[in-house]
Amino acid sequence: MSRTQLAENVCTVARAIELFGDAWTLMILREMFLGGRRFDDLQRLTGASPHTLSQRLKRLERVGVLRRETYSERPPRHEYRLTEMGRDLWPVIVSMKAWGDKWFHHEPAPVEIVHKSCGHTVMPEMVCPECHEPMQATDAAPRLSSEFEQERARARGQ
Amino acid sequence: MSRTQLAENVCTVARAIELFGDAWTLMILREMFLGGRRFDDLQRLTGASPHTLSQRLKRLERVGVLRRETYSERPPRHEYRLTEMGRDLWPVIVSMKAWGDKWFHHEPAPVEIVHKSCGHTVMPEMVCPECHEPMQATDAAPRLSSEFEQERARARGQ
Repeated sequence: MSRTQLAENVCTVARAIELFGDAWTLMILREMFLGGRRFDDLQRLTGASPHTLSQRLKRLERVGVLRRETYSERPPRHEYRLTEMGRDLWPVIVSMKAWGDKWFHHEPAPVEIVHKSCGHTVMPEMVCPECHEPMQATDAAPRLSSEFEQERARARGQ
Repeated sequence: MSRTQLAENVCTVARAIELFGDAWTLMILREMFLGGRRFDDLQRLTGASPHTLSQRLKRLERVGVLRRETYSERPPRHEYRLTEMGRDLWPVIVSMKAWGDKWFHHEPAPVEIVHKSCGHTVMPEMVCPECHEPMQATDAAPRLSSEFEQERARARGQ
């Protein structure tokens, strides 16, 4: 299977991975969540080459994760803003941060997250929306749809 | 900056991205969270080529995200298991799933998550551990460490 074929998977994780499962796209998202909006700034702070950055930004715009906004007509200048679809990727980046902070033992954490409404400096956590207990891998049992099971049976050659 | 130089960043997100910010590594993690353990199965169900899969598995083992366990001496056979470090990546994959389920409007969801202890079928959510309210991008203000600010100033050429 080629990388682009992931987009045809039943699995929504596979399809998400096809869209933004590459290092530079993830770095762009990180930077945009830190407030980055302009090409030059995104380029310097992600370390992507101008060509790579341009290609990734076009793709993210086409998918709907970000939009371009003109902030100067003469000379023509625009900046990039996350859409709602893009802002919804925040838990992905925050989960990576939580993992990195824990396993790289970097002190102090390079970024702290302040919860605006309560004012606390926090590390957001995954909880069950029903019983409100924190959840981790061992607490969860996956249940696959029959469509996904069929796709997997085909992949296994059954 | 080359992709491998991301590992030298102060930012723990950048360092996490360097480790598993590629499509096949993320697909392997998805599959392992669905219970995949054996090379052939991982290969068929991720769609990665044997070479790619082998290279990614070796890297994940070296980093400590998974370990190999022998399950047959003759013939020699082993399987792959996530370590605690690997299981801690669950929120990353679950966040991708939540995003994909929402934005691809795939019904029914290819995978449902059952919370073992309470028995409900749930979509785990990110909450503030202090006030217990759900959190999203617009609720959070990032505060950067001085070390990270200095790195960013250097990247900007200031």
